[in-house]
Amino acid sequence: MAFDFDTLTNRLDTDSIRWDTFDHNKVLPLWVADMDFQSPPCVINALNNRIQEGIYGYTHSPNHLKHTIAQYLLEHYEWKVDPDWIVILPSVVSGLYTTVQQLTTTDEETLIPNPVYHHLRLACTSSHRAFKEMQLEEQDGRWVLPSNKLQHLISNKTKLALFCNPQNPGSTVCTNKELQEFGNFCVENNLWICSDEIHAGLILDENKKHIPLASISKEISEKTITLMSLNKTFNFPGIGLAWAVAETPVLRKVIQTGLDQTIAPPSLLAYTATMAAMKEGEPWRQELILYLRANRDLIYKKFDTFQDLSVATMEGSYLAWIDCTKLNHQYPYQLFLEAGLATSPGSQFGQDKFVRLNFGTQKSRLHKALSLIQSSIKL
Amino acid sequence: MAFDFDTLTNRLDTDSIRWDTFDHNKVLPLWVADMDFQSPPCVINALNNRIQEGIYGYTHSPNHLKHTIAQYLLEHYEWKVDPDWIVILPSVVSGLYTTVQQLTTTDEETLIPNPVYHHLRLACTSSHRAFKEMQLEEQDGRWVLPSNKLQHLISNKTKLALFCNPQNPGSTVCTNKELQEFGNFCVENNLWICSDEIHAGLILDENKKHIPLASISKEISEKTITLMSLNKTFNFPGIGLAWAVAETPVLRKVIQTGLDQTIAPPSLLAYTATMAAMKEGEPWRQELILYLRANRDLIYKKFDTFQDLSVATMEGSYLAWIDCTKLNHQYPYQLFLEAGLATSPGSQFGQDKFVRLNFGTQKSRLHKALSLIQSSIKL
Repeated sequence: MAFDFDTLTNRLDTDSIRWDTFDHNKVLPLWVADMDFQSPPCVINALNNRIQEGIYGYTHSPNHLKHTIAQYLLEHYEWKVDPDWIVILPSVVSGLYTTVQQLTTTDEETLIPNPVYHHLRLACTSSHRAFKEMQLEEQDGRWVLPSNKLQHLISNKTKLALFCNPQNPGSTVCTNKELQEFGNFCVENNLWICSDEIHAGLILDENKKHIPLASISKEISEKTITLMSLNKTFNFPGIGLAWAVAETPVLRKVIQTGLDQTIAPPSLLAYTATMAAMKEGEPWRQELILYLRANRDLIYKKFDTFQDLSVATMEGSYLAWIDCTKLNHQYPYQLFLEAGLATSPGSQFGQDKFVRLNFGTQKSRLHKALSLIQSSIKL
Repeated sequence: MAFDFDTLTNRLDTDSIRWDTFDHNKVLPLWVADMDFQSPPCVINALNNRIQEGIYGYTHSPNHLKHTIAQYLLEHYEWKVDPDWIVILPSVVSGLYTTVQQLTTTDEETLIPNPVYHHLRLACTSSHRAFKEMQLEEQDGRWVLPSNKLQHLISNKTKLALFCNPQNPGSTVCTNKELQEFGNFCVENNLWICSDEIHAGLILDENKKHIPLASISKEISEKTITLMSLNKTFNFPGIGLAWAVAETPVLRKVIQTGLDQTIAPPSLLAYTATMAAMKEGEPWRQELILYLRANRDLIYKKFDTFQDLSVATMEGSYLAWIDCTKLNHQYPYQLFLEAGLATSPGSQFGQDKFVRLNFGTQKSRLHKALSLIQSSIKL
């Protein structure tokens, strides 16, 4: 490997949320979804060069940014996007919040998956929007959204569906057929769609690829705001940016109106990091995927020996969604924490009897985490 | 001088809004309010060190940030603030927008100064809030807000007054008496106050100091959200942060609610830059003030020779608010632009017959700007 993912990194004294919340002498913190790896050298070098300029004034987004994003989407996802469809955002989360606020009124309803990344739910609750939950089901070892079981959630108040693919925390990468079914369901029910695809660059399954929901058909594209970012893939959420893709002008206007009401543009270094990652980050990303696959396989192997814990197929992201139902423990999150491992409690995503383990870390740390899990369930 | 403000800096190819909007071969761009100086070496070094860490994950604000800010406010402005009164923001502008959205309804009214930084007005219009303008008057060569002439603007709908001190674009630094009068006017009329004090660190007048409006009295403090930032003083608006100070819990909650609805925290490097500037930036700031004073004096000297242009006392900021009324030219901004100098058109701040000149630049560039003005009015 040309890049080093194995050497232990030290994130103490960097104000890391993940590493500072617990006493690192007692708890291995594999919860918040960032990785323990350095960003690619191309990103660090680009940031370094920009810092050397010494002047950090008001900055516009680079002239070729949208064009470069469109090119990137074509190369990576065979998705043909007009650069004019792109709106630059400070983060995917601010895109989610803006979309809910601008596309629905307080009288209207939104659909969100369950389990799902908590900010999809918070985007609704923080702006006092009612929502209904679309329950994922485990089918053939994958967490899927059965589109034929969603109709009962719809009323004439339902205006918007929030979606998340690759799924967080379920780790599912939707197939073309699944996307088609979900997209068509939304089109038929005249729902806007906001699709969080932040983990698109982290497909681990050798037989899967990321397919943008909006790339499925023109009908679906016309209903959809897609939210993307390189923050997860290249591990710079603390200085990153995101973008929305929307073919329909009114949807772009919605995002822009939200931006105009908050005025928090990305940091100028977000442009630097994102451009560098798009232009030169691919060799690093390829090796990252290999490393994360090996971590995933370690988890599969260890979990084969656990009777009371299970994990579905981990198709994308560096997040393992661990089913602790059979443990018969009231607070599995607490059980692991007391053993010295911080996971994300499943309640954060809507499921009490699960935890989410972040395996975007060095192999030796993952080994330790798996041992801690093992020892805790033997107690 | 220990620091170099004189050597021409090159901001081309850095996506600078100020330098990229016009052809730099034809136009000297002294408009958007950032400076042509590098940030202090302590800031550049701190950023450099943080970049070397290589991991840019989810970051909390540094543990001592609020405490350090409180200490800074005490040392610089003799303002005693409880660290708990402080809320960290991505920018002063997002603080303005949030305040208007959260403290008023669409049926209520806000007061704003005229002329004033355009985002105070846009904070109202973007959220469809009506406003009335408090006209500044020139008194003894200073732009002041005559508090005894504001009562007619008040109705039972008026809930909030936006304020800006040091004044942008007028460059006035309010006296204790002026602040007291304005603050008491607001208290007596039961108005919330949002005070933009972003230029506090840039007092040029040898006989003036910055006095936070909320430091005048407990009554005023209890009505006030103060917005501050080091972005202007240390010239890093492209990677900066801001903070709100509010003694009254409900006002802090207002800001926090706004933040919770948008979720765009500052970049992690904003913490790095702000902490470094607070801790080690003072010697640089002292020299910057000397340099800007000399620039200010150049402008005074040159303007003494102009019959049809005038500028009031420049007490704070690096912005000259130039009165072109006597020129009898329909578009003074256009006149200067055609001569090769980009200023900010006065219409942006609410006054057509003025322009705002940014003198946060090298002396040689300012000389050129003044020559361009001279040649254009001789035509």
